[in-house]
Amino acid sequence: MTAHAPTRQEEIFHLQGEDQTRAALWFEKLRNDICAEFEKLEDELTESDLPAGRFTRKTWQRDTAGRDEHGGGGTMSLMRGRVFEKVGVNISTVYGTFSEEFRAQIPGADKDGYFWASGISLVAHMRNPHVPAVHMNTRHIVTSQRSWFGGGADLTPVFPLEQDIQDFHGAMKAACDLHDAGYYPKFKKWCDEYFFLPHRNEARGIGGIFYDQLNNDDWDKDFAFTQDVGRAFRDIYPQLVRRHMHKDWTAEDRTALLQKRGRYAEFNLIYDRGTAFGLKTGGNVEAILMSLPPEASWA
Amino acid sequence: MTAHAPTRQEEIFHLQGEDQTRAALWFEKLRNDICAEFEKLEDELTESDLPAGRFTRKTWQRDTAGRDEHGGGGTMSLMRGRVFEKVGVNISTVYGTFSEEFRAQIPGADKDGYFWASGISLVAHMRNPHVPAVHMNTRHIVTSQRSWFGGGADLTPVFPLEQDIQDFHGAMKAACDLHDAGYYPKFKKWCDEYFFLPHRNEARGIGGIFYDQLNNDDWDKDFAFTQDVGRAFRDIYPQLVRRHMHKDWTAEDRTALLQKRGRYAEFNLIYDRGTAFGLKTGGNVEAILMSLPPEASWA
Repeated sequence: MTAHAPTRQEEIFHLQGEDQTRAALWFEKLRNDICAEFEKLEDELTESDLPAGRFTRKTWQRDTAGRDEHGGGGTMSLMRGRVFEKVGVNISTVYGTFSEEFRAQIPGADKDGYFWASGISLVAHMRNPHVPAVHMNTRHIVTSQRSWFGGGADLTPVFPLEQDIQDFHGAMKAACDLHDAGYYPKFKKWCDEYFFLPHRNEARGIGGIFYDQLNNDDWDKDFAFTQDVGRAFRDIYPQLVRRHMHKDWTAEDRTALLQKRGRYAEFNLIYDRGTAFGLKTGGNVEAILMSLPPEASWA
Repeated sequence: MTAHAPTRQEEIFHLQGEDQTRAALWFEKLRNDICAEFEKLEDELTESDLPAGRFTRKTWQRDTAGRDEHGGGGTMSLMRGRVFEKVGVNISTVYGTFSEEFRAQIPGADKDGYFWASGISLVAHMRNPHVPAVHMNTRHIVTSQRSWFGGGADLTPVFPLEQDIQDFHGAMKAACDLHDAGYYPKFKKWCDEYFFLPHRNEARGIGGIFYDQLNNDDWDKDFAFTQDVGRAFRDIYPQLVRRHMHKDWTAEDRTALLQKRGRYAEFNLIYDRGTAFGLKTGGNVEAILMSLPPEASWA
């Protein structure tokens, strides 16, 4: 115990081990690198009448009213630019005890309900209908009985192009293949199954990879894979943006974009487990719903 | 049995009693009356550059693949006009057997799962930000052990005005008071509790009434009340539209409207029981999601 109220840094180090700190610091560094890359893209679209966008940051503390040993928080980075119509990049590190209701659903949390979770989550909705929207998330979860990594990245073009699909999947496959030849086919399939709207019988986008509960009894190996997924995303997505961001578009293209975004909102509000989980566990609403499109329409 | 495939009318009369037929025909008549009133409003906004809107109708059959004694369908009426940016009015009559998963949730269906349901459902999103959006739904449900009525109407203004609130609630209260002095306070409270977004800690709109499982062991009485709710809606809402539809609005008003609609989409996709129920029981997706706004935005 310290005589003063603990600082944020003291609080984190008090409640987490060295591995957890390494993971949390990685998510923060990845956030910094990605935001810098995205701001570069904003600078490059000089033909636009709009100013180049810049991220603004906002921190939040988890609502822990009346609960001991609960806490943490996060930082939302939001940019509304001329390339990125709206992009949110959230990092957060939270810990506490799951309510009875949730314990059964979380591996290793059924005993005492303790959890610690840190991660980065990103959704980009683009102004130019020819630039695909994208989602990336990686996270590390710890309960009293086990810990694991999860995450992935997936692309949502309005007008899917074979070259984009090949390049995005190629980048994700390369990151997977560095670690396990079985990862890509398994995680690609998982992504296709997860990002699917059963009521529409249609995929959210052209997929990518999705993994969860990853624990090979080798923390460093699993962490290295999760880092490589982040790096692969950081490197491939700006290439796809550059490929299409200078293209002209029509009012019909914009309409198609808004309708595709309507489907995106449907998925996130009806099916996304992270959204449901966050809203039900007192997460920060603004951060959780930052994934929603700036504008959307329904036919 | 008839030698020819049964007509739609024969099918309905074969599977439902006289009361059920009366209810289904009432919902159809109410749909006709409301659509006619709404088209009149379209004709009255002569200062608009847009043409007066007209409803188009589309029928659908329930997907009954491989299941006997399941069937029914409905008719969607959709209008995109100059007063009504998008208004959907659905009527449907469906019947079948609930899956094991659903039986426990439906009173009286836990034994054999049989159900019959007929109703009208309406959502209007208005072009002028000064005209409140509205929702109205009434329905009659029959299972093998009991039957009931449910429904209600609620108003969602962007800029709530005391006179509108008084008049809308006054109309609903008057309909209630014709039948039971206890209805209005009970059904108003139910509405406030139901149309609420806990994650935002805010109401969807300014309320109205909501009731469910209504069965006073007097079918005619409950049916008469349900009819009066429909009539009250049919009479009061056009008055509110006329009050505001000629007003000017600004770009800021439109932005406020789109953000309010974002909240509306959140409610319908995350919380609305009818939406979840419909999507999970093979309902018609286009009809179920007709309630979604034509355009919406998130800050």
